[in-house]
Amino acid sequence: MTSPLSGAARGGRLPPDEPGKSLRVTGSVTIRSLRLLELFTPAAPRLTLSDLARKSGYPLSTVHRLAGDLIEWGALERDSSGRFTVGLKLWEIASLAPRGTMLRELAMPVMEDLSQITRENVQLGVCEGTEVVFVERIAGQKAVPVHTRVGGRFPLTASGIGLALLAYMPADVQEAVLAAPIEKFTERTITDPSVLRRVLAEIRRSEVAISDRQVTMDAVSVAAPIFERPGTAIAAVSLVVSAEGASPSTLVPLVRAAARTISRAVRPRPPL
Amino acid sequence: MTSPLSGAARGGRLPPDEPGKSLRVTGSVTIRSLRLLELFTPAAPRLTLSDLARKSGYPLSTVHRLAGDLIEWGALERDSSGRFTVGLKLWEIASLAPRGTMLRELAMPVMEDLSQITRENVQLGVCEGTEVVFVERIAGQKAVPVHTRVGGRFPLTASGIGLALLAYMPADVQEAVLAAPIEKFTERTITDPSVLRRVLAEIRRSEVAISDRQVTMDAVSVAAPIFERPGTAIAAVSLVVSAEGASPSTLVPLVRAAARTISRAVRPRPPL
Repeated sequence: MTSPLSGAARGGRLPPDEPGKSLRVTGSVTIRSLRLLELFTPAAPRLTLSDLARKSGYPLSTVHRLAGDLIEWGALERDSSGRFTVGLKLWEIASLAPRGTMLRELAMPVMEDLSQITRENVQLGVCEGTEVVFVERIAGQKAVPVHTRVGGRFPLTASGIGLALLAYMPADVQEAVLAAPIEKFTERTITDPSVLRRVLAEIRRSEVAISDRQVTMDAVSVAAPIFERPGTAIAAVSLVVSAEGASPSTLVPLVRAAARTISRAVRPRPPL
Repeated sequence: MTSPLSGAARGGRLPPDEPGKSLRVTGSVTIRSLRLLELFTPAAPRLTLSDLARKSGYPLSTVHRLAGDLIEWGALERDSSGRFTVGLKLWEIASLAPRGTMLRELAMPVMEDLSQITRENVQLGVCEGTEVVFVERIAGQKAVPVHTRVGGRFPLTASGIGLALLAYMPADVQEAVLAAPIEKFTERTITDPSVLRRVLAEIRRSEVAISDRQVTMDAVSVAAPIFERPGTAIAAVSLVVSAEGASPSTLVPLVRAAARTISRAVRPRPPL
């Protein structure tokens, strides 16, 4: 049996480099080239050769050679002002990532239904390392503003999607997340590991995660896990609504039904 | 002035390798590694080590080493059955491609409006080399089926989006496209270069491209170019509707208005 979406349950990714921190100079030539790609961020999607040299800590001549390879293959492009950007060819190949665009394509019809029925924000996310990566987002037309970016990251411990994913992660990963400092976004963000442990147990029982003003004081999110196999959550889908007048109990069945429909779409099909 | 989207007007990409054709063994180590990524296709998004060796023509030991680097960095992942897939980390970085996800994010609100107003298929594409790459697609709920895939390619000469893009390409690229064999999809596909030349001139005059049953006999598409600067089309947006009862004259103003709104969003902003 093959699943259209089975992928690494945990990413082996290192935390993003801090701004200004030099890249490690160890690793193969390939890895050193690929590390240049990590220097592009939502805040800095266009970089000059000297930006690349400064941010990487590599000598200018090395950056020139590595970036030349990346341009030649198409992983980077140059814009009209000569700055480097991530290339369309990389984007095309990346559209084959099972946990990215392929998951999004399977989930999109269900997400569009949720969006049209509720007119609220609909989000889809997966876990990479110890963070959520948002794979899709449909903004509700009159809904509470959300600051999610497709391809953006967020801690597992605060949002509905993050909690829904965390609840089903292996115990050692869960404990590592709970042992690390937990970022506080609002006065309602849960940062006590023992309280979070109880919340995660409740999510496993109910198969739904509710983040009530734990990310911003104006929003509530209701999320449900998408299971590739029983107990194995590979993604989660959520509705994010205004905290004012929010009625999670109305939204829970909708979100759970959507998650189940997407789960069926991503599940391995038995051979005919 | 900086534009959020200015990018390579023409991709430097080579045509995709034919199935079974070995990769060139020239090029730097980085390029040889990156070429392994090109072996993943929509039809074959999961490959074993021996698939990679067979398709690349590289020795198994070389593939093992290069794939190891790609796994270590996160460009590839392994699924539950041990096969290689494109990794989420590549997808995350690729989401910063100005002509991919960034364009899509700017265009999406307008595309959603078009979708809700018409209930038809809405598409967004850019030109890479001598082909269209589809960057986004919203399927209409009761609309004619379209077989576009986000990240998929299509010739410039048949679809509305392709014609809208081709009309604004540099003359030498246009002539190269018209000189090459032109694929015939239906009895109505235009394959005569002199007829196509007249069609492209008309598109430049009207700023709209209509592909009437030129891709499939059941569909008409109406597309309009998205201009970064006057005369420089960086993308195109289209509605694809059923050929039966289609009224392009009703759709033209809607699509042109949508393209203009997206053009304003992608245009360089003068410094304040």
